[in-house]
Amino acid sequence: MRSVTSIDVAKLAGVSQSAVSRAFSSSASISDRTRQKVLAAAAALGYRPNRIPSIMLSGRSCMVGVVIGGLDNPFYASALERLAIALRQAELQVLLVQVDDALTLDTALDQLASYRIDAIVTSLAVGSKSVADALSELQTPVICFNSSLVGPWISTVVSNNYGAGQTAAGIFLKQGVTNPVWLAGPAKNAASRARAEGFCDTLKRASGHSGALIKLRGDDTYQSGYNAVRRLLQRGVRPDGIFSSNDMMACGVLDALRERGELHCPDDVIVVGYDNIPQAAWHGYDLTSFDQRTDQMVAVAMDMLDTALQTVDHPYSETRLINAQLIERGSTRPGN
Amino acid sequence: MRSVTSIDVAKLAGVSQSAVSRAFSSSASISDRTRQKVLAAAAALGYRPNRIPSIMLSGRSCMVGVVIGGLDNPFYASALERLAIALRQAELQVLLVQVDDALTLDTALDQLASYRIDAIVTSLAVGSKSVADALSELQTPVICFNSSLVGPWISTVVSNNYGAGQTAAGIFLKQGVTNPVWLAGPAKNAASRARAEGFCDTLKRASGHSGALIKLRGDDTYQSGYNAVRRLLQRGVRPDGIFSSNDMMACGVLDALRERGELHCPDDVIVVGYDNIPQAAWHGYDLTSFDQRTDQMVAVAMDMLDTALQTVDHPYSETRLINAQLIERGSTRPGN
Repeated sequence: MRSVTSIDVAKLAGVSQSAVSRAFSSSASISDRTRQKVLAAAAALGYRPNRIPSIMLSGRSCMVGVVIGGLDNPFYASALERLAIALRQAELQVLLVQVDDALTLDTALDQLASYRIDAIVTSLAVGSKSVADALSELQTPVICFNSSLVGPWISTVVSNNYGAGQTAAGIFLKQGVTNPVWLAGPAKNAASRARAEGFCDTLKRASGHSGALIKLRGDDTYQSGYNAVRRLLQRGVRPDGIFSSNDMMACGVLDALRERGELHCPDDVIVVGYDNIPQAAWHGYDLTSFDQRTDQMVAVAMDMLDTALQTVDHPYSETRLINAQLIERGSTRPGN
Repeated sequence: MRSVTSIDVAKLAGVSQSAVSRAFSSSASISDRTRQKVLAAAAALGYRPNRIPSIMLSGRSCMVGVVIGGLDNPFYASALERLAIALRQAELQVLLVQVDDALTLDTALDQLASYRIDAIVTSLAVGSKSVADALSELQTPVICFNSSLVGPWISTVVSNNYGAGQTAAGIFLKQGVTNPVWLAGPAKNAASRARAEGFCDTLKRASGHSGALIKLRGDDTYQSGYNAVRRLLQRGVRPDGIFSSNDMMACGVLDALRERGELHCPDDVIVVGYDNIPQAAWHGYDLTSFDQRTDQMVAVAMDMLDTALQTVDHPYSETRLINAQLIERGSTRPGN
């Protein structure tokens, strides 16, 4: 592989070197017959085209930087997998960057820029202004998943978190919940804040419930949901409805309820989560949840990417909202 | 970013263009004072070095192709995250390729080769000869996680699956299990086969148990574990020990037992899984499992990568075994 060049292939196929380049470019014009000759010669020699010179000439690498963090949440892992498939199908490569915090993001962005990536896709929950500024500075299209980042080069596809919060409140009202609990994610999580607003506004408007609403805070992990509800039950509080900002925490909530054994889900207390992770469908949880429809979000992101790559010399910015889909399961069906 | 070049930075800093290149290379020799001048000028102009010309000259991209599949298994998601962190710390970039099957692998390998990646790291469970041949043909170092792939350019870091199977059998013998069940993964999964061998050999040698051993097969998913044990119980079989080839299936096993309600874990039946996924530690499962020590596997893989990158012109091949660590939890502690 390291020694075979396009010159070797051109010689064997009896064509020019530029015909070899064109044969390997899906957009270039070349006759079928010439292309077949080139491909046969390339296969015989074990030649693979080198993209690097064309990156140098065009400034386009066909690589997209994908910035991730928190793959221990199955929702992000599944979103990454779907995105990687969609990018592969669009013949774009994924340059993956794992980021722990704003500091590693800065280093990561410098590295990405040095590879002349065409765009960045990120699902970071962090929505700080400094992150948005760092991203905008690159003057490279950025597509964000479920983030509140705004900036001239940044487009965002967001789950309708506020609307889902309203829907969750609707379930609570229909079931006659009188002691509702909201289990929030970390304060910096903008999606969690929007879910809370939709939920609280609707409860308040309907019946003045909001005064009675108990607000707990977790950090989006299973254990934080478990601990929060365990402490609540130890204090003698008896909630009859719990809306958790994500499914990981909701699974912890359900295990804390089961372990304590005083309140049974769904007969004594209904539970609603968010993300529709695989564990929500596990028989041990059977959790009502909101599916963010990652497939639709990825499709919209790919559409935005396409637009962004066609308008690469000036900033492109857009926000699109995807309605989350309520998946009703046993955890909100008392009396079954 | 698109317009600022190293020439601009050199002018502003009052140094040569080659000093600018050296300032951005961690290995090049340059005085601290000159480097500071260059970095200040670069920051003022918003300059970021371009790696592409140096890839062209050296043939080294500092990119590693990471081939993945099955991120819905938390074990693979966590392995990917750790690997991405280790590669970032080694100043190597991750070119991620999602692969569904042998067919997509072939296309993926062609694409990776065209970016002149330095090496490939993969955790594909597929161990077919055609995959090994395709990888070897690239003449690029390949590091495999837990795979049975062999070939001149392929090195492998493997969990001691046979040894862990022996350990699992030891638990069964110590607890006096008389109706053991082995729940296998898909036939093509080499790791699952090795676990089975260690488990069956030890049971057989100890007491001729193996004749009584019930063998079930799943496909590594939660639902397949749930279905397999549900059917077993419906047939009236009463196992007192179940060793599952992975934790996803073991969680399904535990939910099937709990739902049926005849046999309680751990008092009537003990359950052992493999991978130590986060869900194994969840209170609802409390599953004894084998931790593959992804941190050690990643460290060994990075070590192999380092060796491979230093011997890049001839094939490097090595296999290293990592002992899995038994994590004992409630599912094998009857009477507690």
